[in-house]
Amino acid sequence: MTFTEKKKLSKKELILERAAAMFREKGFAATSMRDLAESVGIEAASLYNHIHSKSQILEEIIFRMAKKCNEHLNDLDKPNVSCIEKVEAIIRFHVQMMINRFDDYHVMVNDWIHLTEPSLSDFVSQRREYVQRLEAILSDGIAKNEIRPIAPYVAILTILSSVRGLEFWHRSRKQISAREMEEHMVQHLLGGLKAK
Amino acid sequence: MTFTEKKKLSKKELILERAAAMFREKGFAATSMRDLAESVGIEAASLYNHIHSKSQILEEIIFRMAKKCNEHLNDLDKPNVSCIEKVEAIIRFHVQMMINRFDDYHVMVNDWIHLTEPSLSDFVSQRREYVQRLEAILSDGIAKNEIRPIAPYVAILTILSSVRGLEFWHRSRKQISAREMEEHMVQHLLGGLKAK
Repeated sequence: MTFTEKKKLSKKELILERAAAMFREKGFAATSMRDLAESVGIEAASLYNHIHSKSQILEEIIFRMAKKCNEHLNDLDKPNVSCIEKVEAIIRFHVQMMINRFDDYHVMVNDWIHLTEPSLSDFVSQRREYVQRLEAILSDGIAKNEIRPIAPYVAILTILSSVRGLEFWHRSRKQISAREMEEHMVQHLLGGLKAK
Repeated sequence: MTFTEKKKLSKKELILERAAAMFREKGFAATSMRDLAESVGIEAASLYNHIHSKSQILEEIIFRMAKKCNEHLNDLDKPNVSCIEKVEAIIRFHVQMMINRFDDYHVMVNDWIHLTEPSLSDFVSQRREYVQRLEAILSDGIAKNEIRPIAPYVAILTILSSVRGLEFWHRSRKQISAREMEEHMVQHLLGGLKAK
């Protein structure tokens, strides 16, 4: 990669980062390319050297996050990892994403509705498959008596909703650290699943 | 109460019910008094015989729900009820509210931001006090070794976020019944708190 290519890439990274923050704070519809250019500190016209449209930005943010989620799940797919260990890793992964990549995660879970076809269908099907894989890990754990017989649909909804709820922690005075938050949420959510 | 007074009350009930549904579906800002009158099946002018403004409707929906939450918590405040029993009752109460009174609950947790002063401060302080009372029950349960030492702030966030997540169940094909949902969510969330 040449120096110019690297510089262009890092500028694009900055654009995606600022865009995710603006989509989360102001909403996707209310964010204009002009505002974005201003936030990045470039001319609106220069923005188009890096990106074609607001839709493209949204797609890149969302599919990059979805890819991370899928890759994490693929990495867990090993015979020597127990189901309860997988569930713990999944909870930690999502809590960490929500804490450390709040803007991107928020955009993925809230703004996917603004995707246009064929990206919209692609995302919805990736999400459905991802949730099915999570539910399959729970079912497997129940069959192996590692996990209590809690309906996988409910357990996954409970876990993912709890993670989304970290938005309130972000908005709060954060009297509890990110690390404590992760530990206690894992204890609560995993403790309710572990077979005695 | 005279027949006319009763009729007026039930009409007002209907107005609040339709308003909550419209606020949830279209958003508070996008709902007009004209749309509301149409949905109730009366003239816009007649609406003002029952209610003064959209703000008043919002206040009535929210403070009625907040009152129910507070009354439920007051009812639990008895010496013969263990902390873990209280937590179970609180989870069931919120799950049932979110399932059976979805519109009102949704408006309370999402649209309180549209309240105007002094109602806004009143609600925020009621909510703060309510959460503090929940956290105190957790702290008490931890001190009595009924509940595992999970930070009350995190446990309450996890419980209330899980309940909010039932919005996705409402929007889904509901392959799991409300009753099952409640049982499994209680098992998951309470199981993670119970001392072994």
